Amino acid sequence: MGEFDVIKRFFLRPERQLARADCVALGIGDDCALVQARPGTQIAISSDMLVEGHHFFASVDPRALGHKALAVNLSDLAACGAKPLAFTLALALPKIDAAWLDKFSSGLFALSDQQGCELVGGDTTQGPLNICITVLGEIPLEKGQSQALLRSGAKPGDDLYVSGNLGDARLALEVMRGNLQLEDAQFQLARERLERPTPRIELGLALRGIANAAIDVSDGLLGDLRHVLKASGVGATIRTDQAQAMLAAQSALRAALAKPSGPTDTQLTERLWLGYVLAGGDDYELAFTAPKASRNAVAAAAARARTPVSVVGQIDTELGLRLVNAQGSAVENHFAAFDHFA
Amino acid sequence: MGEFDVIKRFFLRPERQLARADCVALGIGDDCALVQARPGTQIAISSDMLVEGHHFFASVDPRALGHKALAVNLSDLAACGAKPLAFTLALALPKIDAAWLDKFSSGLFALSDQQGCELVGGDTTQGPLNICITVLGEIPLEKGQSQALLRSGAKPGDDLYVSGNLGDARLALEVMRGNLQLEDAQFQLARERLERPTPRIELGLALRGIANAAIDVSDGLLGDLRHVLKASGVGATIRTDQAQAMLAAQSALRAALAKPSGPTDTQLTERLWLGYVLAGGDDYELAFTAPKASRNAVAAAAARARTPVSVVGQIDTELGLRLVNAQGSAVENHFAAFDHFA
Repeated sequence: MGEFDVIKRFFLRPERQLARADCVALGIGDDCALVQARPGTQIAISSDMLVEGHHFFASVDPRALGHKALAVNLSDLAACGAKPLAFTLALALPKIDAAWLDKFSSGLFALSDQQGCELVGGDTTQGPLNICITVLGEIPLEKGQSQALLRSGAKPGDDLYVSGNLGDARLALEVMRGNLQLEDAQFQLARERLERPTPRIELGLALRGIANAAIDVSDGLLGDLRHVLKASGVGATIRTDQAQAMLAAQSALRAALAKPSGPTDTQLTERLWLGYVLAGGDDYELAFTAPKASRNAVAAAAARARTPVSVVGQIDTELGLRLVNAQGSAVENHFAAFDHFA
Repeated sequence: MGEFDVIKRFFLRPERQLARADCVALGIGDDCALVQARPGTQIAISSDMLVEGHHFFASVDPRALGHKALAVNLSDLAACGAKPLAFTLALALPKIDAAWLDKFSSGLFALSDQQGCELVGGDTTQGPLNICITVLGEIPLEKGQSQALLRSGAKPGDDLYVSGNLGDARLALEVMRGNLQLEDAQFQLARERLERPTPRIELGLALRGIANAAIDVSDGLLGDLRHVLKASGVGATIRTDQAQAMLAAQSALRAALAKPSGPTDTQLTERLWLGYVLAGGDDYELAFTAPKASRNAVAAAAARARTPVSVVGQIDTELGLRLVNAQGSAVENHFAAFDHFA
């Protein structure tokens, strides 16, 4: 099987050509794909690259990998409030493994179909396994103004929200690394979050015109939040008790940490647990800010998007990032954001 | 240095933010970039991935690599007649090497600035060296019809043209592999073509409304032409004598092949030489078809684009691809297109 056979067998779906989104004027099979933006819209674009051994284990289910490769890109569209339109896939493969490709493409297309985001082109080549996806999304203009959610709009006094849960992906990773033990049901829950993250597209769309700023949490909340603070020229305070409540598997983690195989020192336990939530990485939730006066609007948007959101802190005039506990006392910040080269 | 330092030091150019193309509403630094298509236009999109050891040698000049990574993508825009707008860069690096990144980015930006194609976003991660670029270009609509040059428009009786030269990139590769010897001046000429290809953007733009079909020659003329023939439902005949004249370094090659270190059998010599031209790969020229009645228009377009073009054959009603010599006798086709997995 050669590269064109791979494209034809696993990535061309002629039956989809008719059902194709209006925006795709020309899909796979020419030098370029052609995408037609609707009048009064902008195109949002983002690229993410996943490398074996860095972003995923070689043993990962290829279906989950196909899902995740697209999901992490869609998460960037969600953070801008963009509606997914189309994507390109560039794939370096060590060899052609039909069973692997079949599963990978089925995981990819399940999410692509669910989100109405069409594969329009790309590249297939030999090399160490590497998956690079570029997504295009649509952002409406209103009176010539972009409705994109940006990192730069956070205002002092804004509530700081996070969607869904934080920390479970890292928890699964630590179990897979042999650093922690969890009951199987709890591990599977956490692993699902690591391997099959849910891009918060609906929430991003619902927050247009409501949130002042947004970002997707991929390197850990504290690290990603710093980008928002810097772009907006503001600071923030995070309530560690509210943040800790974001861990879905917290009861399991509590039990795991209390076992002889886990750390027994209470402070260390707390620090580990909070670290997963605040700086675990691979969460693909949205962190966003909105005025306190918009709490009802945020709650309604979250309900429309069927996505839970929680307040974990607030935006301050004072620059920098502070952690405080339920009593308002400062909590030391030991937590480093994920850096691929650190 | 971490990943954000890499972006800031080598890829953010704040002084460019003001001079930025009109189409770029938001560049590097948010979850997505925002691109604004002008009314009455389509967006052309293409992705290409370059992998060390497959697309380039580890020893390549990083400046040339930066140029080539963007050039091969721009070549796809050229083949559609698209005007370059913007690109994303996803980069996997084994380690952070400031000297390498400095040269790589300078080669990349020299071409990007020359073509008015702005870097708007991307990804930086650790992994085996891999460069994935996605380009966006603009195609005008006329009365709602796309002006893109497609693979599917070739008509029987059309002239088959190729721009510039073919075969020199492969010639350089064979010298670098130790399979051939060339005088240094000739090798440098061929190597320049391998490492710093010229995307034929101006020619693609000039051919809108004139050419019936176009493709960029990246895997070798015969292989790429087959995509045009298949998409158009036609066949073609190539004149091997006209094709052979496309090799810029042909005199040098002739001399090299006559030397004791080269093959001495005349038939083998001919076959090698023709093979480089017809199936060498990495040429990044345009192959295109146009009605015989448009020869003056093609010549004028080529002159406007300051790009030489040559007729190397014609499109036939009879399916399949035929090679004939100057006397019209059939030449056997031994030449396989480049396939990354063959």
